[in-house]
Amino acid sequence: MIRLLLFAPLLFVGSRALAFQLDELTKYIDSHQEEYVQTLREWVAVESDSSDVQKRSEVERMMNITAEKLKAMGGNVELVDIGLQELPSGNSIPLPKVVTAQFGSDPAKHTVCVYGHVDVQPAKKEDGWATEPYNLTDLNGNLYGRGASDNKAPVLAWIHTVEAYQALGIELPVNVKFIIEGMEETGSNGLDAMIISQNDTFFADVDYIIISDCGWLSRRPALTYGTRGNCYFFAEVEGPTQDLHSGVYGGTVIEPMTDLIGILDTLISPGGKILIPGIPEAVAPLSDEEWKMYQDIEFDVENYKQKIGVSHLMYSSKVDLLAHRWRYPTVTIHGIEGAFSAPGTKTVIPAKVIGKFSIRQVPNMDPAVVEKQVTDYLNAVFGRRKSPNKLKVTMVIGAKPWLADTQHPLYDAGKEAVKKVFKVDPDMIREGGTIPIAKTFQDVTRKSIIMLPIGGFDDGLHSQNEKMSRYNYIEGTKLFVAYLHEVGQIKRD
Amino acid sequence: MIRLLLFAPLLFVGSRALAFQLDELTKYIDSHQEEYVQTLREWVAVESDSSDVQKRSEVERMMNITAEKLKAMGGNVELVDIGLQELPSGNSIPLPKVVTAQFGSDPAKHTVCVYGHVDVQPAKKEDGWATEPYNLTDLNGNLYGRGASDNKAPVLAWIHTVEAYQALGIELPVNVKFIIEGMEETGSNGLDAMIISQNDTFFADVDYIIISDCGWLSRRPALTYGTRGNCYFFAEVEGPTQDLHSGVYGGTVIEPMTDLIGILDTLISPGGKILIPGIPEAVAPLSDEEWKMYQDIEFDVENYKQKIGVSHLMYSSKVDLLAHRWRYPTVTIHGIEGAFSAPGTKTVIPAKVIGKFSIRQVPNMDPAVVEKQVTDYLNAVFGRRKSPNKLKVTMVIGAKPWLADTQHPLYDAGKEAVKKVFKVDPDMIREGGTIPIAKTFQDVTRKSIIMLPIGGFDDGLHSQNEKMSRYNYIEGTKLFVAYLHEVGQIKRD
Repeated sequence: MIRLLLFAPLLFVGSRALAFQLDELTKYIDSHQEEYVQTLREWVAVESDSSDVQKRSEVERMMNITAEKLKAMGGNVELVDIGLQELPSGNSIPLPKVVTAQFGSDPAKHTVCVYGHVDVQPAKKEDGWATEPYNLTDLNGNLYGRGASDNKAPVLAWIHTVEAYQALGIELPVNVKFIIEGMEETGSNGLDAMIISQNDTFFADVDYIIISDCGWLSRRPALTYGTRGNCYFFAEVEGPTQDLHSGVYGGTVIEPMTDLIGILDTLISPGGKILIPGIPEAVAPLSDEEWKMYQDIEFDVENYKQKIGVSHLMYSSKVDLLAHRWRYPTVTIHGIEGAFSAPGTKTVIPAKVIGKFSIRQVPNMDPAVVEKQVTDYLNAVFGRRKSPNKLKVTMVIGAKPWLADTQHPLYDAGKEAVKKVFKVDPDMIREGGTIPIAKTFQDVTRKSIIMLPIGGFDDGLHSQNEKMSRYNYIEGTKLFVAYLHEVGQIKRD
Repeated sequence: MIRLLLFAPLLFVGSRALAFQLDELTKYIDSHQEEYVQTLREWVAVESDSSDVQKRSEVERMMNITAEKLKAMGGNVELVDIGLQELPSGNSIPLPKVVTAQFGSDPAKHTVCVYGHVDVQPAKKEDGWATEPYNLTDLNGNLYGRGASDNKAPVLAWIHTVEAYQALGIELPVNVKFIIEGMEETGSNGLDAMIISQNDTFFADVDYIIISDCGWLSRRPALTYGTRGNCYFFAEVEGPTQDLHSGVYGGTVIEPMTDLIGILDTLISPGGKILIPGIPEAVAPLSDEEWKMYQDIEFDVENYKQKIGVSHLMYSSKVDLLAHRWRYPTVTIHGIEGAFSAPGTKTVIPAKVIGKFSIRQVPNMDPAVVEKQVTDYLNAVFGRRKSPNKLKVTMVIGAKPWLADTQHPLYDAGKEAVKKVFKVDPDMIREGGTIPIAKTFQDVTRKSIIMLPIGGFDDGLHSQNEKMSRYNYIEGTKLFVAYLHEVGQIKRD
C-alpha cells in the first residue's frame, strides 16, 4: 500500500496546478448555478416528511431520486434495506432504504464518506409559511422551502462537487462515498444497525466522515466540532379509567393534569437552572481556553434576539449565551399528549396525560445516568404529592453528545478550505442540537469526523419559512470542492 | 281570568279519576316502549355534534326532525332564526334554528315550558367506544349511543308524554311549550339573545320552566335544585415570533411553556385547595341543614370510586364529596393549545401556548369578580418570574351558578310525582356541572325553574359509551306524565 502511494497521480500535481484546477472548478460552479437551483427545486417538491407514515411513499420516492442521480453520475450505488418500522398500532412498515454510493476506489487516496439526509420535517402553509413550503421560492437571494437547508441543498452541494470534478475531467483528489438516509428527522431509525452491520464492508476503507447537516453561527463560515445529546422523556400520569366531565366530577377526583403540571414545574427554575439533582454537577467545567475561544467568535447578541423576536434572553453576555447553547444542558417542555389541545373550550378532566420534555445533554453527562436521575427525582416529587394517580417516566430517546478533536488534520483542512473560498478564518463552533449519528459513527467506525456546515445562521430549520440562500448553496459547493483538495493533501499515516 | 278558572275542566276531575288516568297513561307508555326506543335510535343516528362546524348540516337536520315531530303532533311549531356564529377564521355561519312549540293555550291552566337540546358532544368509535356511537345499541337494558342521555331521550320522553295524553284523549293538565336548541354543547350560542327577545311573547304566558338535562345521583330518583357556574380561562404566554428548535435555541431563550407550567402550577394545591386569593373566601358557608341534607342522600362512595376507576378520591366522606361536587368551587386544567400534543417526539420550543382551565363557580362567587381575581393573581405570579414573555389572561366563559327554592310548589309537585311513579322520596341534589341557561331563564324570565332529571347516575355524559337505560327512559316518561298532573294541581296565585 505504501509503495502504491508513491505513484499516486495526485502527488504529481503541483500547488500551481491545484490553484488552477480550483479556479476552473469555481467557474464551472458559478456557470451552473441555475441548474443547481432547479435540481434543488425538484428535490424540495418531494414531500419527504419522515414523521408522517402517510407520506412514506414520498420518502421512498426521494430515496430513489437520490439513488438515480448518483447512478447517472457513474457511482457504484446501492439501496440498502434497513428493515421495518414498528408503528404504535403494532403494525410494521418498511423503513426507507438507505442510499450508499462510491466514486473511486483508489487505495492510494484517502476515502471520505459524506453523510446526509433527504427526509424533512413536517410543513404546512397554514403553519405560518409565507410561501408554499414544497414549492421552492426564490426571493431576494433566498430559496424558501421545507428541507432546502435541512438537508437537501447540502447533500446536493456534495453531489455537485463530484459532478464538477467529473465534468472538467479533473480527477477526484479523494475517493468519495455517500451515505444518505431518509429517517433523520424522526431519529435515524434503523441506521445505527446498518452502520454496525456494514462496519467491516462499506466503512472498512473509509478514512474520514463528513457531515454537513448543520449551519453557521453568523455570516462567517464555521467548522463544527461538537453537538449536544438529547434525552427525551415521557412522564405519563394516569388517573380515572376515562376522561371525565369537569363539572360533574371536578372537586372530587385528583386530576392527572394537576399532578403532571406540578411535577413538570419542578424541572427548571424561571431563571433556567435545572433542578434535577446530579445534572448540573455532571457538566464538564468551562475551561479558560474555551472561554477565550467563545470570546473570539462572531456572534451578534442583538441580532439573535431580533431574529427570535424576544426582548430578553436567558443570559445577556455572548459567552454565557454560546456556552448555554452548546455546552450546558437545558430542559425544554414540548407539550402534553392526552389533554385538550384544540382551539376553543372543552370541559374535560383528561384521564391520562403524557408530559413531553427533553434534556439537551453535554459532556460528561451519560444518558443512562440521566434517565435514572430524572426518573428518581420525578418519582420523589410525585410521591410528595400523595396522589392516587400513577406516574410512569420513560426515556424514549437517549442520544449522546459528540465532541471532536479540533487539532485533527481534518479541521486544519477545513480551515484552509474556508480561507481559500471565503478569505476569512472560520469560527470554531458547536451545535446546540443533536446529530446522534455523529456519535454512532464515532463509536462504531472509530473514524475521524468533521462537521462542515454550509447552512446559514438564519435558515429556520424545523421552523416556518425555512430557506437556503443562493450564496450559501453556491459558495458552499465551492467550499466542498476546495475541501476535497485539502483532504487529498493530508499526509497518510 | 279568575272566573274562567272556576270553570276549568281540570277542576272537575276528582282524585280517583286522576289516578285512573295515570294508570291508563302508564299502561300506554309500557305498551309503546319499542316505538320509543326506535325513535331514539333514529335521533341518535343523526350526528348532531355542534362543536364541529363540518357537522352543522346534521345539527340542522336534527332541528328539522324535532320540528316535524312536534308539528305532526299538532303543535304550534316555529323554527326560530337566532343569527350567525362567528368562526375563528372571521367567517360566519348560521346558527342552528331553535325549535319552539306549543300544545294548548287554555288561560285557565298553568303553562310549563320544557327546555331541552338535541345537539351532542363529539364521539368517535376510536375514542374508546365499545359500540358505534351513532348506532343506538341495546345491551342488557342499556341503550348505548352518543346523546342518548344527553339530551335526546329526555327530550323524547317529554314528547312521548304529550303524545300519550293525546293518544288516550286525556286533556293535558297544563299547557305545554317546548324550547329545543342545537348549540347547548358549545355554549348555547345565540340562545340568551333569543330568550331576551321573546321574553314578552313566547315566555309571557309561561309559568314554570322545566329542564331535564341532568341525571340522578344514584339509583334513587332525584330533583335538582342547583348547578355550579363556570368561569373558563385562557392564559396565553407568548415569547418568540415562531416555534424554535429546542436543540439549537434551548438554554438561551426563556420558554413560554416553562412560564405557563409555572403559573398553572400556582392555581391549586395537590390536596385540592384553590390558591387564588379571594376565591375560597367568597364561598357561602355550609349550613348545618345542608350538612344534614347531604347526610341523608343516597350516595355510594365506593361505587363512585369504582366507576371513575381510582383508588382514592379528593375526600373520603360522603358529605365532603357531595359538597365539593356541588357547592364548593374547583379548578380543572383542561390542556394546552399551541404546544406539541401529538403522539411521538418533537423537539420544539413552542412560541405561543394557551393554557386552558376553568373554575366551577358557586354562590356567592361572581364571574366578574372571579375574572379580576384570577387575572390579578396570575399577572402577579407571572411578574415574579421576571420573564420577558407576554401573558394574556382572558375569561372566555363566565356562566353563573343557579340555585332554586326547594320549598316552591314546583318541587312539591316533583316529590309527589316521584313518589307516585317510583314509590320513594327523591334525593334533593345539585349538579356539579353548569347549565347556564337555567340562570338565564331565571334572570330574564323571572319564572320559577325546576330541574327534573331522568338520566341515570352512570350514563357517561360527554364520555365514551354514553347510554340511557330503558328503565330510566320509560319510567322517566311516566314521571313526566305524573309531573304534569301534579303541576296541574298547583294552586294559582
